[in-house]
Amino acid sequence: MSAAPKGNGARAARTRGPVHVIGAGLLGASVGLGLRERGIDVTLEDLSPTTVALAADYGAGRVRTAADPAPAIVIVATPPDVAADAVERALTSFPSAVVTDVTSVKLAPLLELTRRGVDLTNYVGSHPMAGRERGGAIMARADLFVARPWVICRDEATPAEALTLVEGVALDLGGVLIEMTPEEHDRSVGLVSHLPQVVSSLLAARLVPATEQAIGLAGGGLRDTTRIAASDPELWMQILGANREPVVELLDAFGADIAAFADALRDPAQTGAKRRIADLLAAGNRGVGRIPGKHGSSERFTTITVLIDDTPGQLGLLLTELGELGINMEDLRLEHSPGAQIGFAEIAVLPEVAERAITDLVERGWRTL
Amino acid sequence: MSAAPKGNGARAARTRGPVHVIGAGLLGASVGLGLRERGIDVTLEDLSPTTVALAADYGAGRVRTAADPAPAIVIVATPPDVAADAVERALTSFPSAVVTDVTSVKLAPLLELTRRGVDLTNYVGSHPMAGRERGGAIMARADLFVARPWVICRDEATPAEALTLVEGVALDLGGVLIEMTPEEHDRSVGLVSHLPQVVSSLLAARLVPATEQAIGLAGGGLRDTTRIAASDPELWMQILGANREPVVELLDAFGADIAAFADALRDPAQTGAKRRIADLLAAGNRGVGRIPGKHGSSERFTTITVLIDDTPGQLGLLLTELGELGINMEDLRLEHSPGAQIGFAEIAVLPEVAERAITDLVERGWRTL
Repeated sequence: MSAAPKGNGARAARTRGPVHVIGAGLLGASVGLGLRERGIDVTLEDLSPTTVALAADYGAGRVRTAADPAPAIVIVATPPDVAADAVERALTSFPSAVVTDVTSVKLAPLLELTRRGVDLTNYVGSHPMAGRERGGAIMARADLFVARPWVICRDEATPAEALTLVEGVALDLGGVLIEMTPEEHDRSVGLVSHLPQVVSSLLAARLVPATEQAIGLAGGGLRDTTRIAASDPELWMQILGANREPVVELLDAFGADIAAFADALRDPAQTGAKRRIADLLAAGNRGVGRIPGKHGSSERFTTITVLIDDTPGQLGLLLTELGELGINMEDLRLEHSPGAQIGFAEIAVLPEVAERAITDLVERGWRTL
Repeated sequence: MSAAPKGNGARAARTRGPVHVIGAGLLGASVGLGLRERGIDVTLEDLSPTTVALAADYGAGRVRTAADPAPAIVIVATPPDVAADAVERALTSFPSAVVTDVTSVKLAPLLELTRRGVDLTNYVGSHPMAGRERGGAIMARADLFVARPWVICRDEATPAEALTLVEGVALDLGGVLIEMTPEEHDRSVGLVSHLPQVVSSLLAARLVPATEQAIGLAGGGLRDTTRIAASDPELWMQILGANREPVVELLDAFGADIAAFADALRDPAQTGAKRRIADLLAAGNRGVGRIPGKHGSSERFTTITVLIDDTPGQLGLLLTELGELGINMEDLRLEHSPGAQIGFAEIAVLPEVAERAITDLVERGWRTL
């Protein structure tokens, strides 16, 4: 095996430094780590001397001093409630730099900056869809953004060079560019991020008064649904407060679904009650099937199930042969029982190659279901 | 693959056979696989000849014939809505056997059997807290119950020998015994299993009308909170219908929390609104902190995440190299974002080999998270 880096490490960096990062928490320090790994000069600042020193110690960049040259790009990675302040200050302090931010809400800071009359020519808002339950530079990682969507909110006034600079940073960090308006972004994250956060937190909150006995029966379902309830309440108060309208609308609709479900279950004799319950559960199946990278129920791919001996070599051989056959695997899931002699590889492929894949695999001696 | 029993096979089995399993789906076939691994004779029956033949093919037992001797214990693993029927029939057909069931609701079938005047001396209800999103013998595994709580509902009339027999099966399958009344059980699973299921399903249902753009921003939080929304609606209609009262009460309370949260967010100027939001989010932190064993989705294995180029050859290479390194992969999941060049292989291994696996993989040039 060669020592060359696997993945995207080999391509030349797009970003030209120096890059200045304001806010050295999880996101800021991860940006720094990722860019430094690509050989880009990164300077850091943070209101907390301890935080910035910690991030520098982890290799996320060096603490910026007055002697440093002006940055080509400034990345604001502060908490949401001070993001507009930090962006305004960066635009004023570094008039030649392009300024972006990675705040998880995009409309509120933009409206605030506009209200203040700040010249936003050099500002391009962005939001990498990456995070962890715990924040801080201590949790930072260079690959935090790899393969994650990175939303860029441009408008007609955004200069092409400014856009290119911000996109370059996102691409250098491994992100997948997605262009949206601030309104589209905020509604979208309201649905896929903020609503699940509130739902998970309130579900977990129901466990506070539970008996030890009940908690003792917890399984994987409860663990998964409540995992993000461990997130920082203060950060989430800021995010939810900055995205109030879409989140309230979503919570109202979700609450109405909960009430409708409870009513149908309460009085199963009423006309259509069973049907309403079944419809909502089936809608859940369809909804989860729409999530990309979600196993099992994707409508875009056909799943082929191949029987394999329950040994690691067998699966490697199967995948190698799929490669030889030129069959592109879109997803894979392994099922095996330690008590059974056989396992199953569930391989998702494009519908148009499914039939040929099965024929070719069977010809090579594989058993399919 | 050696024929020697794995896992807890070294201890002598407590269960004396033959054991008869009624219902050869996920739970029934897993019971069969696990008991057979301990050398216990298992017979199977199912309304569907295809299902029972499939379970027998997997090694979960042999199809019961009229020539078979009477079983010492009968395990009913049918869908909930026919569990009471199956228990009654088993008690009548095998008067010398102890009968248990693994139905996920315990009060409703007991009340139904009592209403019918069935002699329940030889019946001990039980419920192993184990399952998977997808059912069927094809998903069965011998270790499904290992380290999972197994609730036993005895009452004063339960003979000691009957209790010992049922507990023996649970222990032989690796379960952790927990004694509860049917009422305690149903309230507990309402909270830790049924409420999360409805919440997850209704959250996922909100994704049905979402734009592609919004869905494209989905991350790990949404995936985790909606994972169990992929569960079988028909099975869940039966479970929820059989545990109506506790679930409706929990849904009402949860719905009230959602409404209170939405109201506080809607009108942040009202007195105490911010405090109410903070309190609910903080309660979520405390609630999730109460869940035992909250690390990763499986307690038995450690998950290693390896970055791979999004091409079939890369994954095959990774698995081949794992085989060369002598690292046994217990489970594998592939995650990749559409449009990204990079995917993630999540590989479950035994905790004791995880560190070596990471070191060896990194040495060979792989990037791990």
